[in-house]
Amino acid sequence: LTLSYGQFGLVYQMFSITIATMGAGFLFFVLAQQNLAPRYRPAMVVSAIVVAVACYHYFRIFNSWNESYRLVGEVYQATGVPFNDAYRYADWILTVPLLLVEAVAVLALASNIASGMIWRLALAAFVMIATGYPGEISSDTGTRLLWGTISTIPFIYIVYTLFVELGRSLERQPARVQVLTRNLRLLLFASWGFYPIAYLLPLLLGGGLNASGIVAVQVGYSLADILAKVGFGVLIYFIALEKTAHDR
Amino acid sequence: LTLSYGQFGLVYQMFSITIATMGAGFLFFVLAQQNLAPRYRPAMVVSAIVVAVACYHYFRIFNSWNESYRLVGEVYQATGVPFNDAYRYADWILTVPLLLVEAVAVLALASNIASGMIWRLALAAFVMIATGYPGEISSDTGTRLLWGTISTIPFIYIVYTLFVELGRSLERQPARVQVLTRNLRLLLFASWGFYPIAYLLPLLLGGGLNASGIVAVQVGYSLADILAKVGFGVLIYFIALEKTAHDR
Ligand SMILES: CC1=C(/C=C/C(C)=C/C=C/C(C)=C/C=O)C(C)(C)CCC1
Ligand SMILES: CC1=C(/C=C/C(C)=C/C=C/C(C)=C/C=O)C(C)(C)CCC1
Repeated sequence: LTLSYGQFGLVYQMFSITIATMGAGFLFFVLAQQNLAPRYRPAMVVSAIVVAVACYHYFRIFNSWNESYRLVGEVYQATGVPFNDAYRYADWILTVPLLLVEAVAVLALASNIASGMIWRLALAAFVMIATGYPGEISSDTGTRLLWGTISTIPFIYIVYTLFVELGRSLERQPARVQVLTRNLRLLLFASWGFYPIAYLLPLLLGGGLNASGIVAVQVGYSLADILAKVGFGVLIYFIALEKTAHDR
Repeated sequence: LTLSYGQFGLVYQMFSITIATMGAGFLFFVLAQQNLAPRYRPAMVVSAIVVAVACYHYFRIFNSWNESYRLVGEVYQATGVPFNDAYRYADWILTVPLLLVEAVAVLALASNIASGMIWRLALAAFVMIATGYPGEISSDTGTRLLWGTISTIPFIYIVYTLFVELGRSLERQPARVQVLTRNLRLLLFASWGFYPIAYLLPLLLGGGLNASGIVAVQVGYSLADILAKVGFGVLIYFIALEKTAHDR
């Protein structure tokens, strides 16, 4: 397998900027909590942990990428050391439940949500990620589609539940918070929806896990991670900032 | 391509001292915020994030520089691994919008600025950086001039807008703050103006991207980054310190 100079460099640079963004997010969540009323700070702590874990994994992913390809003449050739996709799934296993806790915590401040919900969501997230992995590492179209489909069932359950609950929580909010919560719902939809699309890109682009398929998946997941982790946390920060002002 | 011992070492040392300065700036912004009234602290948080992101990128830039040249006898010869200019542009893509947010936030404390302005400035910054990159990596004079000229259009828009708005905000300020804000305006002008000059140095020195052209660009950008990031943040700190005293 051979990547062009630009293809290798695009993923390389994407990983590097993702490391920097996660690190910047970490500093933001730690330093900016002080502006929030104490009851909103736990959400920032969760976001700080999520992006710190992601920062670590992107360092590993970056190094794995560099070990997997070697410049030979004008192109990058696979060295035989396989690129380690498991880092990404390990990251999700840790961070997705945390993000769900954060989302539910923000909701729970507004409405009374069954504490059973967080367990059902966490279980669904576990199944979604565990069943996605065998498809991710397979270059066989049928296998990718099969596991992708199974993984999509808990995915739909999670996204649907959050969407409905965020909608319900809207009514009891001050006007400015309503606007931001609608944006949060949109961001959640867009960023989470990005993952299955990135997963399918090798098939959608037609070539399977060839050079452009690999590049598309990695760039797609990195962008999705930035939105779902840093973007999500920043938006919750601004919601909490509004509420802090409103509570006074 | 061959660099003399002194040429290689100058850039090497410049990168190292820039890492140290960004790290020092980070500590200053984090530790000194407590001296400021709470409303001025977010600006320090932004500065802390900006220099932390820059510190990360200068580590990468430093390593890339060392991989690009090898001591052969008395001189440094290109190893064939290209020096990665993309780190710099990745850094700017993240930090310039943050610096604009900081500048507008400081202004907004003094005057009522349309929140639409920050989006227009951020978009202009994105266009400026994205169109500068193809020129940066080209050793062809025509290409460098073409993209440099395109990139200068949003550049002028940004600098002009900030200059005018900073001027407007002057009137409502206490005398001591006025002096500092004038200095801020000067620093903004000088540091931002440094970038297009550094970009053009290979052409101005006459030799294009030969040894002295490469050295001039890297030293120029590093100095500009120190002024625009650390210098800018420190000056805002002193403005905020004055205002904190004045508000009491
Ligand atoms: C539906 C689906 C997937 C969904 C993944 C998601 C939704 C991941 C979300 C990750 C987040 C939010 C991480 C943030 O920390 C997979 C596993 C790619 C496999 C294909 C089908
Ligand atoms: C006009 C112009 C440029 C301007 C760059 C600037 C103004 C960068 C500012 C960076 C800052 C302020 C970073 C601080 O974090 C380029 C892209 C070199 C290309 C040539 C034309």
